[in-house]
Amino acid sequence: MKTKEFKTIATKYKTIFFDAFGVLKNHKGIIPGIERTFEFLDEKGINYFVVTNDSSRGPEGLADGYIRRGIKNITPDKIISSGMLARDWLSLKVKEGVVAYLGTGDSAHYIETAGLETLPIRDIDLDDIDHIKCLVFLDDEGFDWNQDINKVINLLRKRNMPVVVANTDIHYPVSKNDVAVAIGGISDLVEEVLGKKFIRFGKPDAQMFMFAYERACEVKPLKRNEILMVGDTLYTDIIGGNKFGMDTALVLSGNTLPDMAKVRISGSGIIPNYICESAIIS
Amino acid sequence: MKTKEFKTIATKYKTIFFDAFGVLKNHKGIIPGIERTFEFLDEKGINYFVVTNDSSRGPEGLADGYIRRGIKNITPDKIISSGMLARDWLSLKVKEGVVAYLGTGDSAHYIETAGLETLPIRDIDLDDIDHIKCLVFLDDEGFDWNQDINKVINLLRKRNMPVVVANTDIHYPVSKNDVAVAIGGISDLVEEVLGKKFIRFGKPDAQMFMFAYERACEVKPLKRNEILMVGDTLYTDIIGGNKFGMDTALVLSGNTLPDMAKVRISGSGIIPNYICESAIIS
Amino acid sequence: MKTKEFKTIATKYKTIFFDAFGVLKNHKGIIPGIERTFEFLDEKGINYFVVTNDSSRGPEGLADGYIRRGIKNITPDKIISSGMLARDWLSLKVKEGVVAYLGTGDSAHYIETAGLETLPIRDIDLDDIDHIKCLVFLDDEGFDWNQDINKVINLLRKRNMPVVVANTDIHYPVSKNDVAVAIGGISDLVEEVLGKKFIRFGKPDAQMFMFAYERACEVKPLKRNEILMVGDTLYTDIIGGNKFGMDTALVLSGNTLPDMAKVRISGSGIIPNYICESAIIS
Amino acid sequence: MKTKEFKTIATKYKTIFFDAFGVLKNHKGIIPGIERTFEFLDEKGINYFVVTNDSSRGPEGLADGYIRRGIKNITPDKIISSGMLARDWLSLKVKEGVVAYLGTGDSAHYIETAGLETLPIRDIDLDDIDHIKCLVFLDDEGFDWNQDINKVINLLRKRNMPVVVANTDIHYPVSKNDVAVAIGGISDLVEEVLGKKFIRFGKPDAQMFMFAYERACEVKPLKRNEILMVGDTLYTDIIGGNKFGMDTALVLSGNTLPDMAKVRISGSGIIPNYICESAIIS
Repeated sequence: MKTKEFKTIATKYKTIFFDAFGVLKNHKGIIPGIERTFEFLDEKGINYFVVTNDSSRGPEGLADGYIRRGIKNITPDKIISSGMLARDWLSLKVKEGVVAYLGTGDSAHYIETAGLETLPIRDIDLDDIDHIKCLVFLDDEGFDWNQDINKVINLLRKRNMPVVVANTDIHYPVSKNDVAVAIGGISDLVEEVLGKKFIRFGKPDAQMFMFAYERACEVKPLKRNEILMVGDTLYTDIIGGNKFGMDTALVLSGNTLPDMAKVRISGSGIIPNYICESAIIS
Repeated sequence: MKTKEFKTIATKYKTIFFDAFGVLKNHKGIIPGIERTFEFLDEKGINYFVVTNDSSRGPEGLADGYIRRGIKNITPDKIISSGMLARDWLSLKVKEGVVAYLGTGDSAHYIETAGLETLPIRDIDLDDIDHIKCLVFLDDEGFDWNQDINKVINLLRKRNMPVVVANTDIHYPVSKNDVAVAIGGISDLVEEVLGKKFIRFGKPDAQMFMFAYERACEVKPLKRNEILMVGDTLYTDIIGGNKFGMDTALVLSGNTLPDMAKVRISGSGIIPNYICESAIIS
Repeated sequence: MKTKEFKTIATKYKTIFFDAFGVLKNHKGIIPGIERTFEFLDEKGINYFVVTNDSSRGPEGLADGYIRRGIKNITPDKIISSGMLARDWLSLKVKEGVVAYLGTGDSAHYIETAGLETLPIRDIDLDDIDHIKCLVFLDDEGFDWNQDINKVINLLRKRNMPVVVANTDIHYPVSKNDVAVAIGGISDLVEEVLGKKFIRFGKPDAQMFMFAYERACEVKPLKRNEILMVGDTLYTDIIGGNKFGMDTALVLSGNTLPDMAKVRISGSGIIPNYICESAIIS
Repeated sequence: MKTKEFKTIATKYKTIFFDAFGVLKNHKGIIPGIERTFEFLDEKGINYFVVTNDSSRGPEGLADGYIRRGIKNITPDKIISSGMLARDWLSLKVKEGVVAYLGTGDSAHYIETAGLETLPIRDIDLDDIDHIKCLVFLDDEGFDWNQDINKVINLLRKRNMPVVVANTDIHYPVSKNDVAVAIGGISDLVEEVLGKKFIRFGKPDAQMFMFAYERACEVKPLKRNEILMVGDTLYTDIIGGNKFGMDTALVLSGNTLPDMAKVRISGSGIIPNYICESAIIS
């Protein structure tokens, strides 16, 4: 598998979208040297955004994680999270009332900033649910799976309401070898039990790329193929970016290991424009 | 939808297989009057078995639930559970060593009676797993979902071993309106995260019907179409029984409600030989 | 199921998107009276578009079908088809060279107007495929299924290339009772055989609604919830429009029959803002 | 990946089941040297069967293919095909009348030997279908896909009847590099369009292994783990044989290539008891 240096590719584009996990950080924290990439992009006047399916906290909280770990250039305005799509959807479509959720208090930020009242599943009385307008799956933490997954199922059996999944990922890494079920995986289980169809936000869905694209165009108008999507996962970052009309670069610092990249690309038919060892510019 | 009286159908067969939930019992307990069905079958010399995907306890425990509630004729030898297939598989294929499990201590009965050592997931040290031969999904109760589902995933990422699912059901009823996720649903989530393929026992899989058939033939040799499968669910009892070569009766006392039966049958293409209000013989 | 008169709803919106089949036409042709709807919208200064997964011919061809049947207001600029997304994608991402396709010559319009050379599958020599840049699934007609489906599969096994599906529908109606497999269904079969992942355009995917939204905004800037999506199918028009942030009206003149609407909505959890007998304004 | 010599494994078992394609034959014909395997097994008194999802012709026709190519020991009584399960099912459940089918005249053998009247889809008049009792998917050849796939769909929309799929395979090899869609793939497309559930026979389903097991026991009574299942495909032969309680040997002469075997086994979690280069005993 012939790889290219990320630096020579990056300079061809006006804006770059970065996936977070496997590209900017891994189980040990920030990937060493990646902070230099953002200094380089700032020097060259190339704009950038972090485009992530992480809805566990708001953009300020997510940016803070980068800043504290030494990437000072990733400010909240550089963060595009799937939670922000959920928030916009709630603003447009729910408008007022109580929104139930599965997740931490931090993740409920996306409901609150839509001007809506939040209600964690644990606090719901199943005999008094007429005031609940919508349910949002936000984060895998912050609730009791034994109790609250079944409670969500019975809430949705009792009352038909819109259900929003703010992160479509099935699992995420928690250490070098270990993973954890993400809220997208839990929402799949609930959908399967109920036979219902939820509203899902996150890569590879086009709405996520469109949202990021609109944000990027606010800074300066762009054609889609003037943007490079950089990711470590063929089935989210690469196919999604490609379908949206952007160019794509697969990095081998995360999910797709160097010795499997060729097999995965020919097996899946998902073809990135470039393959790079990492997104580090040294 | 024209229904037939169960009594007139039952007498055409030498042996009858009954699904448990929705046929013999519901959320309130034993369906009133069903005890008379078994007295009638005994009088007529028609044999019967309860064929169930319940692996939460052994056949003695399951039979005891019927006997205590007034159906004295359902003795342990009348119970065929998917857990018994898991037990037989373990006896044939694992032979010795430690078997990890998700479920209650009661459900671990199926591992113990295969002569194997049991180890609940919570007690596993993920740094010391070389002695674990196999993992079994037994019951949705008896473990901490937040901790132990992720622990199972990481166990199976660290070590490739056979995985057996002793109950393929996705959910089960717990009260008039409420359901709970069954262990089959949890195993689906784990399979999805891992991309692996587990060994699954339970209706509608043919191995379950074959197991029951072999048991019935031990009493007296039978042709398959001398057996009637009685169930409340098209996608498990009826399609499975039909494919196995048995005749089938759909009862409307459980999952398939009277006003939806026609739509469900024509929508699914799963056609029972008979439809009955219930399996009660009065 | 309480329905509303379409006229009273329509006047609340600045722009209306109409699904084609089941809303504007059915197996007999144009739904009688629907032409008046467009006269009314023009009188009121409400803009409208037909948003369709039909990629069997270009927008001129599709508009011509309406004009010839008496809806003179549906001119080519009012048509948004999934084929147009495929065309734009080809323009952005393929740029030059030969594009192979399954479909009629009419459907190849979308490749030609992207400035690319077209090659029907039947004319491909499987020993000379290095010049083929991309494959597009356009229409279920215009090729020999026995020969050409297998030929496509072997083309994609020999050479990894981007594959675009210009219509995600599985089937479409051809007469009062009969349906035919659509090209989306054929592409599903090919994806299943190959285990690959294609690029798919069409409702309910967000990219389709975004494309239509951008077109509508060219006429006059709009918020998403100033648009009404009118459709007959919960799983494409309604969930897709809703997720995109538009309001939605389910009409009972097509796929979703009046006596099943309530069951379908509560079963799927897909909730339209309004339900109307039809989109006719008399 | 450490492999074992097939000879040393074979002698541990009383009966051996062989998959056909990838084990006994490949795109060039019989795998050279495999005829010696059957002489050896006959010498040692080890029984054997070919267990195949091929329903394109009857056991005589299938055996004839081996005999003409030099494996004289594979007589019709050694053949177990999924078509034979379909035939038995028709005998038990349909009993009399007309059975429609997709496939060649040769494949219709399985309907005829069940004592039923055959009717190819092409000869059906969709206005005169009340006499059709059942539909069987037999072979991908012998019909016009453009016409007859849609005709089958509309037949099943007009009339609810049992549908049997006599071969669950999605595709099969036709030359060194090329494959063709199998009838199981076509039946998947039809099931998807209709949303119905068909009765499917073939590996990895337990009913296929049970059928073969019963046949083997007619010769001499056997425990399941006294049988070895030999196959080239993890997802059919190995998982199916393993679940049934048999031991399994994966051979690397077909679908699973030597350099991918380790990745496939750890990726899928499907673990054969043995891995062998081939089933040749020299």
